[in-house]
Amino acid sequence: MTLSIAFIGLGTMGSPMAANLVRKGFSVAVWNRTPGKAEDLKELGATEAGSPAEAVREADVVITMLSNDDVVRELYRGEGGILSAARPGTALIDNSTISPALARELAAAAAGEGCGFLDAPVTGSKPGAVSGTLVFMVGGEAELLERVRPVLDAMGTKIVHLGPSGSGSVAKLGHNAIVAINNLGLAEGLSVAVSGGLQPAKFLEVVRAGSAGSKAAELKSDKLLQGDYSVQFSLALMLKDLRLASALSDGLNVPTPMLEAAKSLFQAGSAAGYDQEDLIAVAKLYEQWIGQSLGGTPDKG
Amino acid sequence: MTLSIAFIGLGTMGSPMAANLVRKGFSVAVWNRTPGKAEDLKELGATEAGSPAEAVREADVVITMLSNDDVVRELYRGEGGILSAARPGTALIDNSTISPALARELAAAAAGEGCGFLDAPVTGSKPGAVSGTLVFMVGGEAELLERVRPVLDAMGTKIVHLGPSGSGSVAKLGHNAIVAINNLGLAEGLSVAVSGGLQPAKFLEVVRAGSAGSKAAELKSDKLLQGDYSVQFSLALMLKDLRLASALSDGLNVPTPMLEAAKSLFQAGSAAGYDQEDLIAVAKLYEQWIGQSLGGTPDKG
Amino acid sequence: MTLSIAFIGLGTMGSPMAANLVRKGFSVAVWNRTPGKAEDLKELGATEAGSPAEAVREADVVITMLSNDDVVRELYRGEGGILSAARPGTALIDNSTISPALARELAAAAAGEGCGFLDAPVTGSKPGAVSGTLVFMVGGEAELLERVRPVLDAMGTKIVHLGPSGSGSVAKLGHNAIVAINNLGLAEGLSVAVSGGLQPAKFLEVVRAGSAGSKAAELKSDKLLQGDYSVQFSLALMLKDLRLASALSDGLNVPTPMLEAAKSLFQAGSAAGYDQEDLIAVAKLYEQWIGQSLGGTPDKG
Amino acid sequence: MTLSIAFIGLGTMGSPMAANLVRKGFSVAVWNRTPGKAEDLKELGATEAGSPAEAVREADVVITMLSNDDVVRELYRGEGGILSAARPGTALIDNSTISPALARELAAAAAGEGCGFLDAPVTGSKPGAVSGTLVFMVGGEAELLERVRPVLDAMGTKIVHLGPSGSGSVAKLGHNAIVAINNLGLAEGLSVAVSGGLQPAKFLEVVRAGSAGSKAAELKSDKLLQGDYSVQFSLALMLKDLRLASALSDGLNVPTPMLEAAKSLFQAGSAAGYDQEDLIAVAKLYEQWIGQSLGGTPDKG
Repeated sequence: MTLSIAFIGLGTMGSPMAANLVRKGFSVAVWNRTPGKAEDLKELGATEAGSPAEAVREADVVITMLSNDDVVRELYRGEGGILSAARPGTALIDNSTISPALARELAAAAAGEGCGFLDAPVTGSKPGAVSGTLVFMVGGEAELLERVRPVLDAMGTKIVHLGPSGSGSVAKLGHNAIVAINNLGLAEGLSVAVSGGLQPAKFLEVVRAGSAGSKAAELKSDKLLQGDYSVQFSLALMLKDLRLASALSDGLNVPTPMLEAAKSLFQAGSAAGYDQEDLIAVAKLYEQWIGQSLGGTPDKG
Repeated sequence: MTLSIAFIGLGTMGSPMAANLVRKGFSVAVWNRTPGKAEDLKELGATEAGSPAEAVREADVVITMLSNDDVVRELYRGEGGILSAARPGTALIDNSTISPALARELAAAAAGEGCGFLDAPVTGSKPGAVSGTLVFMVGGEAELLERVRPVLDAMGTKIVHLGPSGSGSVAKLGHNAIVAINNLGLAEGLSVAVSGGLQPAKFLEVVRAGSAGSKAAELKSDKLLQGDYSVQFSLALMLKDLRLASALSDGLNVPTPMLEAAKSLFQAGSAAGYDQEDLIAVAKLYEQWIGQSLGGTPDKG
Repeated sequence: MTLSIAFIGLGTMGSPMAANLVRKGFSVAVWNRTPGKAEDLKELGATEAGSPAEAVREADVVITMLSNDDVVRELYRGEGGILSAARPGTALIDNSTISPALARELAAAAAGEGCGFLDAPVTGSKPGAVSGTLVFMVGGEAELLERVRPVLDAMGTKIVHLGPSGSGSVAKLGHNAIVAINNLGLAEGLSVAVSGGLQPAKFLEVVRAGSAGSKAAELKSDKLLQGDYSVQFSLALMLKDLRLASALSDGLNVPTPMLEAAKSLFQAGSAAGYDQEDLIAVAKLYEQWIGQSLGGTPDKG
Repeated sequence: MTLSIAFIGLGTMGSPMAANLVRKGFSVAVWNRTPGKAEDLKELGATEAGSPAEAVREADVVITMLSNDDVVRELYRGEGGILSAARPGTALIDNSTISPALARELAAAAAGEGCGFLDAPVTGSKPGAVSGTLVFMVGGEAELLERVRPVLDAMGTKIVHLGPSGSGSVAKLGHNAIVAINNLGLAEGLSVAVSGGLQPAKFLEVVRAGSAGSKAAELKSDKLLQGDYSVQFSLALMLKDLRLASALSDGLNVPTPMLEAAKSLFQAGSAAGYDQEDLIAVAKLYEQWIGQSLGGTPDKG
């Protein structure tokens, strides 16, 4: 018998994830706060619910993919929210990036309603969501994860169980701190190279071939060379994650000087107006500092 | 006719590089300041010179692989040094990591003696030197590079010409700044994860699969998990490179906040006595801060 | 007619502040969570209440001097707390260092009970509390401040009205960020000087006479020279304030790289076990790094 | 008998310093690379030499106040320089801010010519130079310092002997690192305050009254409030000193994370074009970040 899924949150990530669930044959009811996001999914075979409660009421599994702690808390715990509508036994999976504290709060609240809860944030950005190759970092009970594994398998290629509730969030924040630091390292090294007279493409070729290589270099080299700051993962969302990561490290009393330096730089990028561009737009700070494009001089290209 | 090569500097990197030259059929005379380093190479077929001048005098190509600016300058420009002994037309290649300013100084001095000079630092660490898979970042004249390319091909798999003299050094310093930053990002993210209760191996699995992945994560995950700080590339040498990179960015007036934060942390690692360990031993600072091993508790494993 | 005051929180700061109120002739009822702190005050003429509610019930003015947001919120809004017991018209003054968000929350809640609320954190540390020379940074309505000004005058020498509710907290967090940064600057400059062979007392003499001078240098030079880390203001409390300041700057989207670097260093100081020492104990990190006392070698003194 | 003085370098600091020497009755010969700077001094009674050698030849004491290491080295050691012209027994005093290494190099070279050398950089900026209230940080032999003390007394109010040659430079670099850090702390705290809605003048009043007070706050509050970035001490010179301080701490292996963060920010200020403004123009970076003047909105004033 097919699992019935409620999918809430149809943004850059949520829409293609829901589409993959429909394509794999699940029965999917979708809902999004801003209307008009469900048309393509309905054509694929999804149904659109009139409210979160309506979406959730008959579901075996509820998936949420939302922007931040406040939105997630409201949708789970607010009036007419998920926890008030879900039947006992429903599996609740949040794929948003939230604070570990909220993940634990929701797990406890879900247990109070007889439901299970997994914090299961993802890495892979939009390309991974589209191609169904996301990596899931899961916190919560192992048994529950086993029960919903087929659902996650439909959206991703790697599912790592990291421990009890909140563990997925901890992993995601640590992971994204590294992403931010690696991207800044790339931008900074490139700035030195370009300012020192090198052709950026040549330098990035060396970086990618050498021990400085990284996913950041794979994903962002062409964007840097072409000055293409279209969004894979927005600077604003990265800044949000760095703030959560910084607050987490504060709570754990872990000194994180690289993360803090990164947070300040992304904050400067946000202040400069790059919120809705790709996170690598933080490199534009360096371009202003060195008074030179990091992508070379196109007219000479 | 076989090219005759003088190879000076038989340390961790130099010895296996010279060995690859011998194996590929070049006639190689070696010299090292500290004696007793040439035995294995002599068995392979190299000859040992009694002085740099003796090694250089009959060579078509001179290669140096040394530790820092002072040593390199002394060996090229000091009494009985390379420049005083090399015949006009000799190709001089320095594979050390030196300041761009010294690279330009040596190129000019070499030209004064009718010799060519390339700054050609490498990435790949000891494994790359052994397996002959180094990446060369070359500064100097393109014609000269073409002439010695077979020599570099014997030691590496990728040769990138970055521009005039000094360009190889600029690329290497920018590259290594990125390496340092990526390694610190890895250590820091892992510290947050471990402090937040995650199993380090699980977290590193996610990092390597996700967009936080890097050569640093590939090269150092096992070392972190096993607390194995044996040298691939020593912390002291990385700190030296970061200081050169910081001085370079000072000279170019490029703000490099991530590099500076990294320099401070490697400096703290050096002060803590980790100079002769692998650069990832900088992670031990975090272990002390969080009061916990980053590799998990082996007795519970 | 004498104002009747309830004073809650008899710690390092609260006790001498309450004592000054008694000495100036106010009728003062005190309460502290941990018992046994009121003996000296009772000898001076204060009365000890059995609960916060009992202390507050007949008071014209309520003053709280507590350790952090959670404690303050609980005492105001918890069961049997201040807001449930205070008569309409009571003036509530919080001298703790709390987040601006909590200050605004409490002001709104107080208004709902017909009471006024001022966030009025102080600077001056224990010596200022004892001598009645504190500086008050006040947020809230100007009229209310005028009404309670005589009470604040009894404890301090400077009262600055900074704006609506929360403004006192904003000022305090900005102020303390500067304090932390100045103290670290002092420690770091001294570390370079000592490591460079200078006598610390000579260097600090220059600092205090020159444009590097600061209250930090005035307050901490002797402590550094003598290795005296007895508490004027504890490292743990400063770290708490830096975390609040960092969260505030996050919320305001202000890049604060110096504050973030400072937070990381105080965090490392906390991790090293200096929480209950004076904030300048952060200098011990540098002592370990340079392998040398910052106070000179006493045996040679 | 009056001491005869050669004064070389008539910039912002040098001119008023030389004027004070003339006014105190010393016989002063001056020289400056760029001509036309000596007119006012000649009116006071100084003589203008046609070359450094001419100025130095008959002098008992030579004073230099120049911009950086290269200029100082050239003037002392270059052809026709001070060391080639000075008579044995001449006292050489450099008031520039130079690297400790150069100070030691010049002291050794001077000794080779039978001359004494003091590195004696100053703090006090232009106002201190004009009013003769500079603080001198002196490295070199105590006997030599005693001999020239009357000369320094004519220009300053405090003379601190810090140790052997180079010690004055070490003290100056440590001192100026603190100055830079304190100024950034002030700018950053003010940015948080202004961004949080406070009136800047009110906040700075609290800072100056509280434990966040500093010479930086005394010297720069009005400049910040009025957006007056006229030079007391230029941003470019501060950046130069921070680079020397960073190189010094590198050489001493002292981790200096605050100094490095400061260097990056001043570098960004320099890149933004503030080189020839006062060092507190670094605050304009924050103004851009927060999109708001740090001095309040004058049109509303």
